[in-house]
Amino acid sequence: MEKLNFASDYLEGAHPLILEKLLAANLEKNTGYSTDKYCISAKEKIRASCNAPEAEIHFLVGGTQTNAMVIKYLLAAYQGVIAPATGHISLHEVGAIEHGGHKVLCVPEYNGKLKAADVEKMVKDFQNDGNKDMMVMPGMVYISQPTESGTLYSLKEMEEIAKVCRENDLYLYVDGARLAYALGCPENDVTLPDLARLCDCFYIGGTKCGTFVGEAVVFPKPGLIPHFYSLTKQHGAMLAKGWFLGLQYDALFTDGLYEEIGKKAILLADKIRKKVTQKGWKLCYGSPTNQVFVELPDETLKKVEEKVIVSFWEKTKENDTTIRFATSWATTEADVEKLFLVLDSI
Amino acid sequence: MEKLNFASDYLEGAHPLILEKLLAANLEKNTGYSTDKYCISAKEKIRASCNAPEAEIHFLVGGTQTNAMVIKYLLAAYQGVIAPATGHISLHEVGAIEHGGHKVLCVPEYNGKLKAADVEKMVKDFQNDGNKDMMVMPGMVYISQPTESGTLYSLKEMEEIAKVCRENDLYLYVDGARLAYALGCPENDVTLPDLARLCDCFYIGGTKCGTFVGEAVVFPKPGLIPHFYSLTKQHGAMLAKGWFLGLQYDALFTDGLYEEIGKKAILLADKIRKKVTQKGWKLCYGSPTNQVFVELPDETLKKVEEKVIVSFWEKTKENDTTIRFATSWATTEADVEKLFLVLDSI
Amino acid sequence: MEKLNFASDYLEGAHPLILEKLLAANLEKNTGYSTDKYCISAKEKIRASCNAPEAEIHFLVGGTQTNAMVIKYLLAAYQGVIAPATGHISLHEVGAIEHGGHKVLCVPEYNGKLKAADVEKMVKDFQNDGNKDMMVMPGMVYISQPTESGTLYSLKEMEEIAKVCRENDLYLYVDGARLAYALGCPENDVTLPDLARLCDCFYIGGTKCGTFVGEAVVFPKPGLIPHFYSLTKQHGAMLAKGWFLGLQYDALFTDGLYEEIGKKAILLADKIRKKVTQKGWKLCYGSPTNQVFVELPDETLKKVEEKVIVSFWEKTKENDTTIRFATSWATTEADVEKLFLVLDSI
Amino acid sequence: MEKLNFASDYLEGAHPLILEKLLAANLEKNTGYSTDKYCISAKEKIRASCNAPEAEIHFLVGGTQTNAMVIKYLLAAYQGVIAPATGHISLHEVGAIEHGGHKVLCVPEYNGKLKAADVEKMVKDFQNDGNKDMMVMPGMVYISQPTESGTLYSLKEMEEIAKVCRENDLYLYVDGARLAYALGCPENDVTLPDLARLCDCFYIGGTKCGTFVGEAVVFPKPGLIPHFYSLTKQHGAMLAKGWFLGLQYDALFTDGLYEEIGKKAILLADKIRKKVTQKGWKLCYGSPTNQVFVELPDETLKKVEEKVIVSFWEKTKENDTTIRFATSWATTEADVEKLFLVLDSI
Repeated sequence: MEKLNFASDYLEGAHPLILEKLLAANLEKNTGYSTDKYCISAKEKIRASCNAPEAEIHFLVGGTQTNAMVIKYLLAAYQGVIAPATGHISLHEVGAIEHGGHKVLCVPEYNGKLKAADVEKMVKDFQNDGNKDMMVMPGMVYISQPTESGTLYSLKEMEEIAKVCRENDLYLYVDGARLAYALGCPENDVTLPDLARLCDCFYIGGTKCGTFVGEAVVFPKPGLIPHFYSLTKQHGAMLAKGWFLGLQYDALFTDGLYEEIGKKAILLADKIRKKVTQKGWKLCYGSPTNQVFVELPDETLKKVEEKVIVSFWEKTKENDTTIRFATSWATTEADVEKLFLVLDSI
Repeated sequence: MEKLNFASDYLEGAHPLILEKLLAANLEKNTGYSTDKYCISAKEKIRASCNAPEAEIHFLVGGTQTNAMVIKYLLAAYQGVIAPATGHISLHEVGAIEHGGHKVLCVPEYNGKLKAADVEKMVKDFQNDGNKDMMVMPGMVYISQPTESGTLYSLKEMEEIAKVCRENDLYLYVDGARLAYALGCPENDVTLPDLARLCDCFYIGGTKCGTFVGEAVVFPKPGLIPHFYSLTKQHGAMLAKGWFLGLQYDALFTDGLYEEIGKKAILLADKIRKKVTQKGWKLCYGSPTNQVFVELPDETLKKVEEKVIVSFWEKTKENDTTIRFATSWATTEADVEKLFLVLDSI
Repeated sequence: MEKLNFASDYLEGAHPLILEKLLAANLEKNTGYSTDKYCISAKEKIRASCNAPEAEIHFLVGGTQTNAMVIKYLLAAYQGVIAPATGHISLHEVGAIEHGGHKVLCVPEYNGKLKAADVEKMVKDFQNDGNKDMMVMPGMVYISQPTESGTLYSLKEMEEIAKVCRENDLYLYVDGARLAYALGCPENDVTLPDLARLCDCFYIGGTKCGTFVGEAVVFPKPGLIPHFYSLTKQHGAMLAKGWFLGLQYDALFTDGLYEEIGKKAILLADKIRKKVTQKGWKLCYGSPTNQVFVELPDETLKKVEEKVIVSFWEKTKENDTTIRFATSWATTEADVEKLFLVLDSI
Repeated sequence: MEKLNFASDYLEGAHPLILEKLLAANLEKNTGYSTDKYCISAKEKIRASCNAPEAEIHFLVGGTQTNAMVIKYLLAAYQGVIAPATGHISLHEVGAIEHGGHKVLCVPEYNGKLKAADVEKMVKDFQNDGNKDMMVMPGMVYISQPTESGTLYSLKEMEEIAKVCRENDLYLYVDGARLAYALGCPENDVTLPDLARLCDCFYIGGTKCGTFVGEAVVFPKPGLIPHFYSLTKQHGAMLAKGWFLGLQYDALFTDGLYEEIGKKAILLADKIRKKVTQKGWKLCYGSPTNQVFVELPDETLKKVEEKVIVSFWEKTKENDTTIRFATSWATTEADVEKLFLVLDSI
């Protein structure tokens, strides 16, 4: 019997409404390089959803590419990017940010989140250092919503961070690889218009939120990075068939699909959290979104892994390991019921 | 009435056989980052088609990205890449190669092709220069098959180039963005196994040859660029849903589809060439593939463009312009008949 | 007997007035990283000589380093630098500009100089190209004064170039590696204040004009490249003992030494030109400065090289070669007389 | 009265024996780009001193430049460099290593030194990580001798580090900016031949050890970085008057000057350490070399700084600060006596 698979939220293809639209458009002749009607329409819809009528939007292919480009082209050569020590750019992108020439300046993380006060301290320490001309100047703050630990910044927290950024000439950039799972979470109070109001740049994740591929980068104020369009070509981030990305986002932003698409995943993750608690296992990080982190005795984990594919997260203690169950827009009640049969049998 | 569109070969989506396979797989749970069954199967099939059982294969997203990565990671910092003056990397990638740190060393082009003798001369001139330690060392030859002008290297020509490369420690890299239209052309005598035998690296184009996105990079000898897999992640060229690329190539290399997919496009391009000649217009560059270049009086062009979208190529004379009609795997007899109605009316 | 050496203008050490000042200062305790009194004084003197009271000045170590830094940090990632095909950056810096990420866009050269009209044409061609978003945008003009061929831009020519630059949003950067030999040339009508008025950046060469090492970069309008000071540290172009450079420039700009230092070299070069003409040999490029280019039959050259070290320039014809005799501030009448004894004997 | 200056070891110019040699050579005509007799002689002498007859040696201009080049060209794009958290490259080079594309992987520091065991742990953790293909691979260890805290690796410690490097395919690179002050320290047991035997690359500092400028990079096994000579040109690290560096090293390696030059500085630093202890002030880090680190109450520091320039090191406690007194080859007994008069008066 095939194993159950809760390893991640990028296992399946695209949402049925995207697929439908794609089938209808497949043999149309659309113009190239994101000049097509789908890109135009999707951008309009995203601007409306973000309440950012002037926003400049680009459809890129993946998250690492997006992070690498935004950070590289926003920072001056002498600047670095502040990120929590567990940030995706700090750990899991093979040094893509350094490859682009910039240091990642790590601040402490608290369940995946950084604190405005720590950012402010880092900036002040830099400004007060007699050798600051020989050091990397903080130029930007990078955070993820939800974070790599599944947690959410509250609106209040994000406003504090944005305030520190404004007061200290730091750009604020939000990695929204899993943004739909923030927007679909009852605990969340940061909306797309909030992001557009508070950030200099953010991206609306597609790959993990319903598309085959694609991430939508939003610059609420246009022209922040001049000629970003040419830069996407130079960086190899532009598709000849840009319409393929535009079409998917056009579907995601029709009738509020993007804000809806994560909701079921959260409900199913909540069910898993409840079950885990019932089993007496330990939930980690306090994630309220689609990622469920569980610390398990290795012996128990072994039994789980006989029937379920999960993600290894970290070795927590000598005999304990933290793993992740992830749900997605495509996870079904049936999937979770099968998972529970397994968990109940352990 | 909507205009006819012969502007390029990347207007439509994916080949029906790809679409079919995609629909069937959409809700499967495939593992991430190209470790899935489709990638594995597609690579096996490509190795077989190339008669290169050891080949290392990676699925990337686009042509500029592929060129940028292969050239950057194959060359040493002090080396440059030899290319014809009309090569895609010389002109149309916003300096992506220089962005990666390397000079494009242009040799003369003859209908889009370079000559082995010119390559050899450039290398010898370098080697004989008393100041060569202060100059960019040629490290690689870049060519396209078919070229940007639609022309084809014969097997003899490619063997001559490969010989010069081997004798002078130059890598040979072939950009196959439109490779299906070479393989599908009666005039072509360079097969996939020939490419695998003669090149250090080449890529089998997908975007222009039947996929939504995707290019398959082939290193006939594995390990030529160590850890290329990690480099694709660093460069932002790796998809979480790598299976989406693998699946498309798996379809393209089932039952010889890739070798077939360009044939109809060539036949239809031949028809256009015949019609153009009948009209007394001038065919350019001698392209035998899916791109038809025509030099037209501007007055005539104006009439064509009222009803047909074509690609501007270059201003040839004061009142003459060269344009391109491109066919693709998706172009139909009906499309061409409609075009002829227009052309006949001019 | 040791051979005579006219190979270049960087054979000897430093001007006696520099050496004297250096000896006096050797055991002083000067503060580090260009914060010392010599740097401060030298900058003031250079500002005065350039009639540019606001100018920002940095002392770097060498010409390639200076070119690489200025071009890299002034250009946006999508831009390239226009240069004559024989420009130093085009040929002789192992691709340092491309290593910094930018394409060198070559225009025709006329005895080492480019023409304003060719620059304008290149910019217009770019602006009119339908695919310009996929191409490298011209962002800057690089010229040398004197050029690599020893020639000089007249004030009129430089003003025309500056005008084209201003009208087309191009920076104008002048490489003054041998600037003292322009300023010391009777034919020259471009002064330091002219350069400061017309350029966005230029450098006042030291290595070839009297210092051990060092080049002084001048930005007439300060802040053009923010935090250039930190960038010099990042780039490895900042000396802990920055005073060593400042002191040399302080000497060069005391009592007009820099404007004087090239004069004798020009007079001696003029003598060599006269002698060459008397011998019936061909002077090349029309250089009026300290570099004397001569086309010789290879047989004659062989005899010259038995007793004199010269620089090979290029193979001009089957049996003819162009070579260079260079004089410097350190060349003496006696050196030239010895050279004439050799030339007379051939 | 001018303040006493103990701020650093790069305040003065060059050692008298260097100056003497320079005066003698100033008007010689030496060939360019390090092909001169002084470079050749200096390299021979360094090879002899290092007992490394095959060593490849290059004279560069400064430490940051040297670190940036060696690390950039030795590492593959997917690799990073392991360094102690207080390493010069970690903190004080404006991110020069990241600017070159590589992450600095910090391990704990113990008085400025890293431990072999920590390096081994980092490598093993990487190798055991299921996601290692998405992470930066450790490729090299960077240490300084003496360290930034003035401490020394013992031969035993360095051999342990070298062993871990060899066993784990890591390059070992030693930054010897102040190497003369290690070699001149009685406590030191790591010789030049030891460095040549244990390292893949190290540099013999000049700027802080007797030259005006200049650092000598030693690759005990030649060819480790192919065409490093051309790379120095590309990087702007090559001097036209390379002989100016060669001559200085030729003097430093004549009659054992380099091994001697630091001795007096150590003796004088020892005196300062004794005096500091007598005053009841706290010595930090246990530095036995030419840098004396002292933790002082801010009130006391204020009095010191009225008459002596020292280097601020770090704010240690609310009201305490750590500062540095540095001696150099040029510091005299008289300088120290004047310092003691000041200290005694506090």
